[in-house]
Amino acid sequence: MTMLETTSAQGAFHDASYFFPIRVYYEDTDFSGLVYHANYLRFIERARTEMLRGLDLHQGEIHTGDQTFFVVARMTLEFLRPAKMDDLLTVETRPVRVTAATLELDQIVRRDDETLFTARVLIAAVSNGKARRLPREIREKLSPAAAAPAS
Amino acid sequence: MTMLETTSAQGAFHDASYFFPIRVYYEDTDFSGLVYHANYLRFIERARTEMLRGLDLHQGEIHTGDQTFFVVARMTLEFLRPAKMDDLLTVETRPVRVTAATLELDQIVRRDDETLFTARVLIAAVSNGKARRLPREIREKLSPAAAAPAS
Amino acid sequence: MTMLETTSAQGAFHDASYFFPIRVYYEDTDFSGLVYHANYLRFIERARTEMLRGLDLHQGEIHTGDQTFFVVARMTLEFLRPAKMDDLLTVETRPVRVTAATLELDQIVRRDDETLFTARVLIAAVSNGKARRLPREIREKLSPAAAAPAS
Amino acid sequence: MTMLETTSAQGAFHDASYFFPIRVYYEDTDFSGLVYHANYLRFIERARTEMLRGLDLHQGEIHTGDQTFFVVARMTLEFLRPAKMDDLLTVETRPVRVTAATLELDQIVRRDDETLFTARVLIAAVSNGKARRLPREIREKLSPAAAAPAS
Repeated sequence: MTMLETTSAQGAFHDASYFFPIRVYYEDTDFSGLVYHANYLRFIERARTEMLRGLDLHQGEIHTGDQTFFVVARMTLEFLRPAKMDDLLTVETRPVRVTAATLELDQIVRRDDETLFTARVLIAAVSNGKARRLPREIREKLSPAAAAPAS
Repeated sequence: MTMLETTSAQGAFHDASYFFPIRVYYEDTDFSGLVYHANYLRFIERARTEMLRGLDLHQGEIHTGDQTFFVVARMTLEFLRPAKMDDLLTVETRPVRVTAATLELDQIVRRDDETLFTARVLIAAVSNGKARRLPREIREKLSPAAAAPAS
Repeated sequence: MTMLETTSAQGAFHDASYFFPIRVYYEDTDFSGLVYHANYLRFIERARTEMLRGLDLHQGEIHTGDQTFFVVARMTLEFLRPAKMDDLLTVETRPVRVTAATLELDQIVRRDDETLFTARVLIAAVSNGKARRLPREIREKLSPAAAAPAS
Repeated sequence: MTMLETTSAQGAFHDASYFFPIRVYYEDTDFSGLVYHANYLRFIERARTEMLRGLDLHQGEIHTGDQTFFVVARMTLEFLRPAKMDDLLTVETRPVRVTAATLELDQIVRRDDETLFTARVLIAAVSNGKARRLPREIREKLSPAAAAPAS
């Protein structure tokens, strides 16, 4: 009953990008009055998880299934403008390159049309501590031309 | 444009309670495989913030306006069953007592009908480090009989 | 080499209590300018982990060994005075009761002689989701009369 | 009394670098069993704060004094090997360039001699949302040739 009345945060695919909303809470800020810089990594990780969920790829199952983990291998971050308490942000996630074993994404955090933060993120698949091929299903779904599900 | 396509998490009032959904992400778990216990306090704090927002009480404005802060003064917590990655939880928040300077709430985290966590939370209003009266608007809106906005 | 020059935070047993220092960083504060309330649970959890380490009980090994986890079952928390950026705090942890399957502790966070936060914490041992007996070694080491190692 | 018996984490200057120890706790890990990637940013931020403290530059005072904030403007991160529960890590922080308004640092997280994570961090000073000159005292103390206090 209660679930029918509430709505979890929901993203949407548009062109080759996935858009996901983030609300800023107390926990996200620090004593400067603004969002603590490390928390942008939590925001964009939620967006990646939801993008995979939107593509029917559940990380919990991936983990317990064949023990493949996605790990962040490299990130380049630009902190352009600060977010603050109560802000409603949007994370855009756009695949830029998919190789046999890695996935590269651009992630942009905006407040309305204002860009606050950008990240170039390289994701790798590992199993038992070693790089392994990304499942073909993921490579296909996340290749830049195919990120948007057929509508 | 992008905001039209996405939906932030949204709660709902029902009887004397406010219900708010929480999705469990990587950041919420620890190496036991389950949600790290302190993170339930983040979950229920988000629910309180959204309940206040749902009553048109914005904490960011409260802070910068007359410098009154809501602070948690006391909590009694029961950790009954664990939540895990990808779970979709609901936080029920129910005012149980409102006094001149304090607000007492029950907050219950459930996964479907299963109760995972309960909290009895005592909130106080402070200004310049001293207790002060809750704004009348808040006392009225959060008195147990009145928590649900007129529909 | 570098490890010789640096010192990790180190606690000490005194009478029946374990004392552990905590420094407040940016990450611990929120936009109110003070320590975010949920972070006291992180502080006291670090103190419990270090107390166990001080008693030669390593949770990482406990987990990977016989799959027994310590979980927090119940907490009663009092937030008395706020901590702020740069504060150096001390967590006192004092066993108050040990039963076959549970461990009850008092944990007090102070800044100098000023008490900021107190917690009564009930810990249970679980394995495969079921309560199980605490290892005898832990019961003996943490019984209130024996918490301080023989000096 | 209790403070005399305990030791807060303490770093050390060596050549042009500052070394600071970090212990991995429950809160730092996620359900993959390893340290959650965003938490390396918390680790290296603690090291920067302690380096400034070691140079007698207290951020809390800087903030309340002339309202200048240090903000992270850009980061390039490499996640090379995972850290896990109970690990004792060292963060090396080495100034690589100081300009009138920015400070560039290399930060390396190691477990013993093994490099787990590296960051190139660009810090800027801002006041009222605008870039401003770094205080001369900071520029002098953190110029690459001068990072080690005279011994």
